[in-house]
Amino acid sequence: MEIGKELSEVLWKIGPLDMAASQKVRERLDMLTKPQGSLGRLEELAIQLAGITGGSFLPGSKKKVVVMAADHGVTEEGVSAYPREVTAQMVANFVNGGAAINVLSRLCGAEVRIVDIGVAGELEMVEITRAKVRTGTGNFARVKAMSRQEAEKAILLGLSIAGDEIQMGARVLATGEMGIGNTTASSAVMAALTGYPAASVVGRGTGLEDRELAHKVAIVEKALAFHRPDPTDPLDVLSKVGGLEIAGLTGLILGAAAGRCPVIIDGFISSVSALVAVKMNPRVLNYLIPSHLSQEPGHALLLEYMELKPYLHLNMRLGEGTGAVLAMQLVEASARILAEMATFSEAGVSGKEEDTVNENIPGPARSDKLQ
Amino acid sequence: MEIGKELSEVLWKIGPLDMAASQKVRERLDMLTKPQGSLGRLEELAIQLAGITGGSFLPGSKKKVVVMAADHGVTEEGVSAYPREVTAQMVANFVNGGAAINVLSRLCGAEVRIVDIGVAGELEMVEITRAKVRTGTGNFARVKAMSRQEAEKAILLGLSIAGDEIQMGARVLATGEMGIGNTTASSAVMAALTGYPAASVVGRGTGLEDRELAHKVAIVEKALAFHRPDPTDPLDVLSKVGGLEIAGLTGLILGAAAGRCPVIIDGFISSVSALVAVKMNPRVLNYLIPSHLSQEPGHALLLEYMELKPYLHLNMRLGEGTGAVLAMQLVEASARILAEMATFSEAGVSGKEEDTVNENIPGPARSDKLQ
Repeated sequence: MEIGKELSEVLWKIGPLDMAASQKVRERLDMLTKPQGSLGRLEELAIQLAGITGGSFLPGSKKKVVVMAADHGVTEEGVSAYPREVTAQMVANFVNGGAAINVLSRLCGAEVRIVDIGVAGELEMVEITRAKVRTGTGNFARVKAMSRQEAEKAILLGLSIAGDEIQMGARVLATGEMGIGNTTASSAVMAALTGYPAASVVGRGTGLEDRELAHKVAIVEKALAFHRPDPTDPLDVLSKVGGLEIAGLTGLILGAAAGRCPVIIDGFISSVSALVAVKMNPRVLNYLIPSHLSQEPGHALLLEYMELKPYLHLNMRLGEGTGAVLAMQLVEASARILAEMATFSEAGVSGKEEDTVNENIPGPARSDKLQ
Repeated sequence: MEIGKELSEVLWKIGPLDMAASQKVRERLDMLTKPQGSLGRLEELAIQLAGITGGSFLPGSKKKVVVMAADHGVTEEGVSAYPREVTAQMVANFVNGGAAINVLSRLCGAEVRIVDIGVAGELEMVEITRAKVRTGTGNFARVKAMSRQEAEKAILLGLSIAGDEIQMGARVLATGEMGIGNTTASSAVMAALTGYPAASVVGRGTGLEDRELAHKVAIVEKALAFHRPDPTDPLDVLSKVGGLEIAGLTGLILGAAAGRCPVIIDGFISSVSALVAVKMNPRVLNYLIPSHLSQEPGHALLLEYMELKPYLHLNMRLGEGTGAVLAMQLVEASARILAEMATFSEAGVSGKEEDTVNENIPGPARSDKLQ
């Protein structure tokens, strides 16, 4: 895998979790007034957050969802239920605060940052980050989606946005995206990197009918056969069949991991970005927080592949980051549990009965001895 | 099933959902800037809330979790990892704000109401609702847990608490409980009402070892064989092998349904209370909002039995209402989506391409005709 110096340095920078900080939190959790482990994955999350941040994660941490938008040449093949113009129109909707991601971010106490990393039209709004690598990808049914340099540039942009956000105080990042056609690109990237057949990872996206779905599968199969992306070279895969927002989010995720910042992964496309990042450095996995299980069929397979278990089962398929911001409440919950719950001794609550309970039980081990 | 006049009247009062209000919300959801149905179960929740409330559910609705506490005579049999005194000690912890339910209720904007419906000791705190039906149940391994009259009284108390809360402005209720030994009672009630074998519904509760688990199964099997509760008579089941908080929550749930108020169901014990309510009137099902999937094995079976799908997969097993209050955010999210998202026309976003997409697709239906 041939990559530039800047990206290479970031990949080297991603460290292991701080096991001592995790252990300290594990011990604290066992002192709190609840049966040990009874808060389940909220406890595991608290332990993970401690490992990521070296024990410095606190309630009320600043939360930011970064929504990257780009267009896809492959929409020429009729792979989406919506026209390409919707990408730019939805970016305007994000800026005006009328989209689902705006509504749920307000609810969950998250700020939204919109990044144009490759929308086809010219977007003039001052509220968005203008970081266009190119005006949409090429139609990968015929040509490469982008050059290797462009894929790397998109990743580096994501990296620098993560760095900026962490520097400006964000302590939880989340991923979101907008790009008509990007479930097609994501399916192709996933199939290339995991070896899963296209038919198992391609879904209906924004709402294809049966016949359209079969067509979408055929487009992905044809593209993979045509480009033969190298599964051991994520940049090759991204440039041949990827998308600019997919690459950008890969960079955001790498940047979060390098900056020891937890990053919440939204749906299918975001998870494909995470997969690319994990393929570049498996340590990234420790910094990921899955959120919801999308209705897109590839998503369940992909989460299984990465051994990530979604927290929320909502049958959503939007991609804007809506599932990721809903999961922010779970991150906040785990931090508050640790900060605010009373211990057994503070509350004067008795602990588990290790011996007394057993006395009453004529269990096999005991009765064997007695008989 | 022989029941008193007051309870009987409430059961008659529970009406069907308002389908016209649901339909109106369904149409509104389809106008919002997202692919149709892409917010999945958040949309279904908005439709359900409209049906329950006749379309009057709004963001920022007052939310209350009612935590009912009681003791269980069956703890004499060594079925719990914690001593019976913990019930009263945890009630004190709830009052002092140090328990998980307090922490998560603060996060989720819910108020907590603690009800002593049958704790063994005398609780003097003014902050709790003192509604003791009796000082803990009898040990149902030997005697009935309570009389039929006591079971009905506990249900009526729950009913009146739901009525009070709705009158005082609550628009979402949630269930929680505290009672050392109550997974044993709940397993027995579930087995009696569903016919599932005890071994499939009994779990480790607060943390039993293998041998203790086998003992707990045996206790439940023995009690069911001894009492032979009538599966068609929920009050008979409750009085023979139930618990006071289980009956109280059944009343709370019935009262919510009768008052057209959505009620969020926490974990295993709360779900058993919901089962009892549903057995009394199947219409109750429409008013229930499941929350999380507990680690207690009976919970998954019970939710399947009632055809309820949990939203949160957190492996929790606490029962205080912690999963239910976390799900309040999803209720709030669905209300905000409806109230705050822009429509396609407001935002100037193009709709789904019904025809143009198909033109590009050489699908079988079309090519058949052309050839």
